[in-house]
Amino acid sequence: MPHTSTTPPALQDGDLLAAIDLGSNSFHMVIARYTLGQLRVVDRLRETVRMADGLDGKGGLSAEARQRALECLARFGQRLRGIPATRVRALATNTVRQLRSPQAFLMPAETALGYAIEVVSGREEARLIYLGVAHAQPPKPDQRRLVIDIGGGSTEFIIGQGMQTLERESLQAGCIASTRRFFPGGKLSKRRWKDALTEIGAEFQQFATKYRALGWQEALGSSGTHKAISEICASMKLSKGAITAEALPQLRDELLKAKKIEDINLPGLSAERRPIIAGGILVLEAAFQALGLQKLLVSKAAMREGILYDILGRASENDLRDESVDALTLRYGIDTAQAARVESTALDLLAQVEDRWKLDADDARMLGWAARLHELGLMIAHSGYHVHGSYVLENSDIAGFSRQEQQLLAAMVRSHRRNVSKTAFDALPERLLQPARRMTALLRLAVLLNRAHEDTPLPALELTADDNRLALILPQAFIDARPLLRADLLGEADGMAGLGVQFRPFVT
Amino acid sequence: MPHTSTTPPALQDGDLLAAIDLGSNSFHMVIARYTLGQLRVVDRLRETVRMADGLDGKGGLSAEARQRALECLARFGQRLRGIPATRVRALATNTVRQLRSPQAFLMPAETALGYAIEVVSGREEARLIYLGVAHAQPPKPDQRRLVIDIGGGSTEFIIGQGMQTLERESLQAGCIASTRRFFPGGKLSKRRWKDALTEIGAEFQQFATKYRALGWQEALGSSGTHKAISEICASMKLSKGAITAEALPQLRDELLKAKKIEDINLPGLSAERRPIIAGGILVLEAAFQALGLQKLLVSKAAMREGILYDILGRASENDLRDESVDALTLRYGIDTAQAARVESTALDLLAQVEDRWKLDADDARMLGWAARLHELGLMIAHSGYHVHGSYVLENSDIAGFSRQEQQLLAAMVRSHRRNVSKTAFDALPERLLQPARRMTALLRLAVLLNRAHEDTPLPALELTADDNRLALILPQAFIDARPLLRADLLGEADGMAGLGVQFRPFVT
Repeated sequence: MPHTSTTPPALQDGDLLAAIDLGSNSFHMVIARYTLGQLRVVDRLRETVRMADGLDGKGGLSAEARQRALECLARFGQRLRGIPATRVRALATNTVRQLRSPQAFLMPAETALGYAIEVVSGREEARLIYLGVAHAQPPKPDQRRLVIDIGGGSTEFIIGQGMQTLERESLQAGCIASTRRFFPGGKLSKRRWKDALTEIGAEFQQFATKYRALGWQEALGSSGTHKAISEICASMKLSKGAITAEALPQLRDELLKAKKIEDINLPGLSAERRPIIAGGILVLEAAFQALGLQKLLVSKAAMREGILYDILGRASENDLRDESVDALTLRYGIDTAQAARVESTALDLLAQVEDRWKLDADDARMLGWAARLHELGLMIAHSGYHVHGSYVLENSDIAGFSRQEQQLLAAMVRSHRRNVSKTAFDALPERLLQPARRMTALLRLAVLLNRAHEDTPLPALELTADDNRLALILPQAFIDARPLLRADLLGEADGMAGLGVQFRPFVT
Repeated sequence: MPHTSTTPPALQDGDLLAAIDLGSNSFHMVIARYTLGQLRVVDRLRETVRMADGLDGKGGLSAEARQRALECLARFGQRLRGIPATRVRALATNTVRQLRSPQAFLMPAETALGYAIEVVSGREEARLIYLGVAHAQPPKPDQRRLVIDIGGGSTEFIIGQGMQTLERESLQAGCIASTRRFFPGGKLSKRRWKDALTEIGAEFQQFATKYRALGWQEALGSSGTHKAISEICASMKLSKGAITAEALPQLRDELLKAKKIEDINLPGLSAERRPIIAGGILVLEAAFQALGLQKLLVSKAAMREGILYDILGRASENDLRDESVDALTLRYGIDTAQAARVESTALDLLAQVEDRWKLDADDARMLGWAARLHELGLMIAHSGYHVHGSYVLENSDIAGFSRQEQQLLAAMVRSHRRNVSKTAFDALPERLLQPARRMTALLRLAVLLNRAHEDTPLPALELTADDNRLALILPQAFIDARPLLRADLLGEADGMAGLGVQFRPFVT
């Protein structure tokens, strides 16, 4: 349903874009200028925050790690000042995913940065990594490529072809996490290394068979860990610009000459990387074994570049999220005619109150997608289908969407009929709460007005809003012929109370 | 994967079969003899228990209603004595579905009856009703048929063709429930009737458009309510052997001459039916309006006959549950090769311990289905896929399965990896607990042994069990080549502790 409200603001020549990656080991920021349809990087910042070091294993974050993160974000924020929010995306990954209450960290973090911060799932992280690498080193169109990214908390494995990913996996085995898990107290030994390889190997086994069956022509590693290992290989004169199956065991044996992490002495290894290199080499050796790798090239690009290209995509006609919504529509056999009717009505209603209710083009997109997906749960069961649809939207890995965006869709779908769910909205960040409630009110009306599942066009509907009031004005003749709709609309006064909206229907 | 353990016990000429329907208004029992491939009814019992009358709206059941139910079941049980459990199916419907803790009622109810009692979803109830009606009055093969069953608590609407259903809906609007909801205190008036029609109409509207678009050539009503209304029509000389669009308003006007339910005076109406006829006529009038019905024939068959034919199906090669599992496999894109490997291993393991662990052919079927479906949740997300699969199995309407059977599948899938979920097993009736835990242990082993997703056949595995111990004996050479499997098996000692099973792997 094309609608002016949903058209994204197009990029202009000279516009600045920024991507921030709140990684488990380091935070990265890259700023690029949009010129003649291309991106040109104009600034890069990187700080070793080592946030994963602050995890206590029970979802808590140490005060020190938190402080390091906030200070770094404040510095990043200073550099970003003046770039409009629509062209800045800051994404948090594994460490924030593991927090018991991510919002307790994200709220001060957003204040420090001055921009919204979203959390992405491991598989979405994997997609963005692939996107970044594919733009930096374009693959041959008919070749398959394996990309491995060893982060601080998790490791991503992606097989792609051209700009598309075919398989994406994210495993809880990053360089910081693995160092802490397998070498507690910093103690190293051959025995520990062997046991650790077995344990990680078991986790890799699950997807390795599938990956090997699919196959690839070249393999790339894209993280700081790969860069560091490749530099050690070069310093040891084992290989150049790549990591090989022959070099890796030699590296490992050299590393294990140290009995403690602090004594690790590898040529070309920086002091900063020393505390976490053991876990990195361990994960990589397990990956080489599980996947039968011979040679891994090193890419300088990573998720941050992927985020930049994703902003570009979102600002164009090719928003990946549209494709993902279409894929869900197909997979869950959604009645597209009804979805289109509800979407059209919802966007018509939104257009009438968007100024008063401060809803923008991004909100309109989210509302449109919620409308297209509101009946998704019917595939599971009719009874409670809004709950089932909400469950799927909350728990699926949906390409292109952040966790918060999925939670927003889930909250709207959950509350598009029956009682408004308080807990669904509880999961949302404060800044999304008011637009989420208001869009849900519009979605509820759009669903009610189309409840007959009929193709007869609706008459002109007048919707007016002030801060927390909403009034729908309908033609008398229309409502007189529809006693069921009248009853439904009267019931909405109660229904919308849970959204903090006072709703009244009127007839003219 | 054909396996001797899963072959159901075939029916013999002369075998007795029994179906019990614990309806919201009355309990029915029908006993039939299997003769020359056919069923011949040899006994019918019906008691007006009016269990729905005992619902307090908050999931509680009055002591009186409970007592009436238990006494009726004890009488039914007396008649059933001697019929093997595999040929008796007792199903509870809407009133039990609404109980806060169904088990608190079902446990004494099973004791009184002497047989297991299962709960079925509204849509499964709808399927069984259609099956009963279709066998009693076989439809012409190319004709579509609408069947309506107004129960005490819910009303089912089914469109079918031949023996297959095309659409099944179950709505919370039965004759007892609607009488209580719309005519509190037993007061009747035209105004109340009109408002009630609007409210029920709104609920019917959701599916009515879809049903009318699909269409049907004949419509049948299959419940006591229809029989009673059709008898009133005949007594009032309005129609004969059917209920018509002309007759119904006249019936309603005649009924509304009374201002209170106790004063209803309709020719041909029994005293027993009087307290609930208002809700029945109301629901039927709303159905006539929503579906544009002109004429409804009356069928004597109902869910109880459908249950009998379902027992017949389950004892044959055509167990509907197999088809349903196949449909889920397709819909959720399950890797069938892996599913088959796990199923084959699981059934091999079961065959070795079935005597000691008292697992029968029914258990083997459930284990086989759990194996086929254990990866279902991967369609939603890799992370926590066992939880997602369990959610879908618990919440979907899966044709042929009772609620308890779905809960059993859900519990096995939920606990086939990682931690054993206590709450998943909590939902199961006491009698299923031990087999459920034991089958889950077998499923866990089968999944582990096939974790490599490889087609290489497994070596001969020896599994031995006593009451709560399980030992797996593997060839030394096999395990030596598989350090990952060894680590996994050692970890299972902890994994299975949550199932009350002491597991130990051995090598020979």
